[in-house]
Amino acid sequence: MHVGFIGLGNMGGGMAANLLKAGHAVTAYNRSPAKVAALAQQGATPARTVADACRGDVVQTMLADDEAVENVALGPDGIVASLPPGGTHISSSTISVALARRLTAAHAEAGQSYIAAPVFGRPDAAAAAKLFVIAAGAPAALNLVAPLFDAVGQRTFVVSEQPYTANLVKLSGNFLLATVIESLGEAIALVEKAGVDPATYVDILTSTLFNAPAYATYGDLIARKSFEPAGFAATLGLKDVRLALQAAEELTVPLPLGSLLRDRFLALLANGGGQLDWSAITTLAGRDAGL
Amino acid sequence: MHVGFIGLGNMGGGMAANLLKAGHAVTAYNRSPAKVAALAQQGATPARTVADACRGDVVQTMLADDEAVENVALGPDGIVASLPPGGTHISSSTISVALARRLTAAHAEAGQSYIAAPVFGRPDAAAAAKLFVIAAGAPAALNLVAPLFDAVGQRTFVVSEQPYTANLVKLSGNFLLATVIESLGEAIALVEKAGVDPATYVDILTSTLFNAPAYATYGDLIARKSFEPAGFAATLGLKDVRLALQAAEELTVPLPLGSLLRDRFLALLANGGGQLDWSAITTLAGRDAGL
Amino acid sequence: MHVGFIGLGNMGGGMAANLLKAGHAVTAYNRSPAKVAALAQQGATPARTVADACRGDVVQTMLADDEAVENVALGPDGIVASLPPGGTHISSSTISVALARRLTAAHAEAGQSYIAAPVFGRPDAAAAAKLFVIAAGAPAALNLVAPLFDAVGQRTFVVSEQPYTANLVKLSGNFLLATVIESLGEAIALVEKAGVDPATYVDILTSTLFNAPAYATYGDLIARKSFEPAGFAATLGLKDVRLALQAAEELTVPLPLGSLLRDRFLALLANGGGQLDWSAITTLAGRDAGL
Amino acid sequence: MHVGFIGLGNMGGGMAANLLKAGHAVTAYNRSPAKVAALAQQGATPARTVADACRGDVVQTMLADDEAVENVALGPDGIVASLPPGGTHISSSTISVALARRLTAAHAEAGQSYIAAPVFGRPDAAAAAKLFVIAAGAPAALNLVAPLFDAVGQRTFVVSEQPYTANLVKLSGNFLLATVIESLGEAIALVEKAGVDPATYVDILTSTLFNAPAYATYGDLIARKSFEPAGFAATLGLKDVRLALQAAEELTVPLPLGSLLRDRFLALLANGGGQLDWSAITTLAGRDAGL
Repeated sequence: MHVGFIGLGNMGGGMAANLLKAGHAVTAYNRSPAKVAALAQQGATPARTVADACRGDVVQTMLADDEAVENVALGPDGIVASLPPGGTHISSSTISVALARRLTAAHAEAGQSYIAAPVFGRPDAAAAAKLFVIAAGAPAALNLVAPLFDAVGQRTFVVSEQPYTANLVKLSGNFLLATVIESLGEAIALVEKAGVDPATYVDILTSTLFNAPAYATYGDLIARKSFEPAGFAATLGLKDVRLALQAAEELTVPLPLGSLLRDRFLALLANGGGQLDWSAITTLAGRDAGL
Repeated sequence: MHVGFIGLGNMGGGMAANLLKAGHAVTAYNRSPAKVAALAQQGATPARTVADACRGDVVQTMLADDEAVENVALGPDGIVASLPPGGTHISSSTISVALARRLTAAHAEAGQSYIAAPVFGRPDAAAAAKLFVIAAGAPAALNLVAPLFDAVGQRTFVVSEQPYTANLVKLSGNFLLATVIESLGEAIALVEKAGVDPATYVDILTSTLFNAPAYATYGDLIARKSFEPAGFAATLGLKDVRLALQAAEELTVPLPLGSLLRDRFLALLANGGGQLDWSAITTLAGRDAGL
Repeated sequence: MHVGFIGLGNMGGGMAANLLKAGHAVTAYNRSPAKVAALAQQGATPARTVADACRGDVVQTMLADDEAVENVALGPDGIVASLPPGGTHISSSTISVALARRLTAAHAEAGQSYIAAPVFGRPDAAAAAKLFVIAAGAPAALNLVAPLFDAVGQRTFVVSEQPYTANLVKLSGNFLLATVIESLGEAIALVEKAGVDPATYVDILTSTLFNAPAYATYGDLIARKSFEPAGFAATLGLKDVRLALQAAEELTVPLPLGSLLRDRFLALLANGGGQLDWSAITTLAGRDAGL
Repeated sequence: MHVGFIGLGNMGGGMAANLLKAGHAVTAYNRSPAKVAALAQQGATPARTVADACRGDVVQTMLADDEAVENVALGPDGIVASLPPGGTHISSSTISVALARRLTAAHAEAGQSYIAAPVFGRPDAAAAAKLFVIAAGAPAALNLVAPLFDAVGQRTFVVSEQPYTANLVKLSGNFLLATVIESLGEAIALVEKAGVDPATYVDILTSTLFNAPAYATYGDLIARKSFEPAGFAATLGLKDVRLALQAAEELTVPLPLGSLLRDRFLALLANGGGQLDWSAITTLAGRDAGL
């Protein structure tokens, strides 16, 4: 397929390279052009503007946040303005449900299709084409772009016909990870105050009931109180929890655990910990326990 | 070794049988004698009283709750009164930290050793000698009984020299499981209200970030809203959360997630759901979302 | 003084009338002109546009929400565009801290003064000139308009030189009222389940420890479960709690009680109670208690 | 009437003196006899044992906590053992619901009446016969002892026929006071971080919406961060919140605010603040806000 790709960061760069490897014709755009040049050596056609990346039938975006996506998609000379009628925009960024709805409406009005396809996986999974793609949108459009998902991921999950629901699932995943972190923080504060070695305790958990990567990764960080450098900064953790709470409020769904997490992140930031890894919210449970 | 075994329920029956298979001489006692007779056919010596099971160097107990353990261990003609000086009591029941401390003191006063060794694993793991043993107590006593742990489990974790800490770790495990349940309940309420099929959602979670048995087991129950018959009743869930909170209060440790869980269990019981599986607390998040 | 007054609703109508009674020259504007005509009979000069109300040195606004204030103040032909340099805008509406900051900046840029002066008190207090004025802004501007505050209120409190802090104080007052409601709901659920008559209980509270109007007013509504017609609708309660939480987030302040209240309001709305009085969140504590 | 009085502390001493002033014949007992001697000078008959105070038809107790009441009432030679059949025990101590139920049953079994009559008011109100009496029990018994209540209080509220409900009301009062403290702590943290002077803020609150003694008393302490010496120590605050939560659990009633308060008190105690006034839990909201 002919596909435009916008956003060649740690995630998008790997994804675009895998589209090339799978034989697709990729026209690539990035705000800083050095990454475009690198991808061109792998066969991509450089685009000098967003509009240049919208000449084909499909354009995929992988950007940092709502603001970046809003500029690229809805700005003058943006995707909605540039993509031909009948074209499809695949948005893989982690964005708010509210923006996903606005994009869905804007593309529909322009006679275009909009698909949300955020992914689970870190940059190494993106490079290895081992992402999990969480896709939502009109079935016909999803069928059309399925080969693109196959090129970057190990499995595609179709969530529903409403694009925003894929973003909701993505946000809920980060919400669940944050609950794992908080629960480990409280449990470790409890046993540590009784004299149990946190590392031994995490070893027990991950060897028995909780042998999942999330518990191993964060259990280790929390046991060692190793929060710098941040794998994912607390400020970003707060942002994602906020996005989950906002989406929940639009759907009129209370999330008591989300509320508790939000308060934890605010307390951490208020005490100077915004740049720490988001698992540093567990220091608050420890502090409240007098450790 | 010569070992008395008290409590031949779903868990204890399998454990005692595995002690026999490993070549240990087991004298078995159970409140209802039929189970003793069954084990005798596998080579156990029947005991007619608790005291009869305390003639050897070691006695192990696997009972339902604090009350049962208190009666068997501290009652007249109980273990403390019957075990010879120098003997060792291994307590594998899930009991309160407060009782564990009382037992430690009572045995010490009687010149006996007390080891806490609760286990992680269900009855099938007990039958297959695949339990995880969470042990705490004096190193010498732990060394002595290590062969007994090897006979029933796949791995033994030594927590600390204070027996009660093993009970604390066990209680914290159930606390963590309950947080998994609540977090899944909130996340599923959120995506379900947006029209996402809960089963699809759980499939995504357990295929990606949360490929641990706890998420698969409870995610499935919650997605199918299948809470009867209970694998573990909500009344028992409340009991274990209460034990964790009491232990935390004795150690002066706040557990905000524990508080939230306690309130959830109380609301479920107040609305007639005490006999449901403890994962039925997730119906409350759904109800609050207007589902 | 010559003062423009914009917004002649239940509150603003009484305030403007009291400005007239105190001898001030009032030019009045309201979206629906009937109320302007009524006030003109008391001596006011009718204004046909917002700009018409901005010809004097001072203009005061008393409007429903952020959107209304934003339109009137920042829109084309709005207050900022119409008020002469050196003029003063007194904003008495209950608005967000974020908007208060934007207004402060916009007026400063236009060489105008901005004062926030939200009030405590219901329409009957507005009619009787018995409001409490919560004022914040530059001291010189506050001195200038002090006679206007005296005309509508029984007392003026100066909070700080930053206008937004007066809005923050106003929002915190509604937050505190909501905590009173929730606490009464939980306490009444508790004693009612034990068979104590709620009305007797509220009588005890308001006769002893809690002889404040807030407890009497809401205690009575809750004891009688009388939530219609709403004195203040749950949707507005959620809005004010949300504004308090947003202001707190901008200041990086966790408000655990605010989080709990937000979840209560969402659960009430999700179950169809948005039009009920905000004290109807107490039905949730009752329901969770199985009443 | 002839009445025995047991417990001549700050509260009981004033109450017994007022019984004498009203013309009742009082036989007084106290663990430390000095206070008995002092009261004897006002006309009381000294009792050397608990049993000595149980010779009449009515005995009233005003003691520190569950343990003291349990010893005096249920111990050997205690009230239940000593009071004649048909006699009445009025318990004015702040005790647990569970103990109130045990006392009710024990007295019924002994053919005696049991009335719970805790009070609202501080020692100065006790000395001035200005207490509020919260009474519950059988109507006939309540009628009989009404003159005793009139002698010590300004008003008697009859809660229900179940004695324990009066204790529940008393505990709920302290629960509500604690929620006032926490809500003030959060609100003050919010406005203080915005630069508003806490004392000004409390003045606004108590002059407008919250002109109740609880807000004035605690608002002042919190604004001045004056937590020593304690009027009511945090350890006692935790005890009363715990008693409220236990009573609620027996009635299967969740109290989310109670859970939050319990966590606050635990965090305060874990950080060395147990001897501070219970309003010092507000330092935690301030700390979480980075103040």
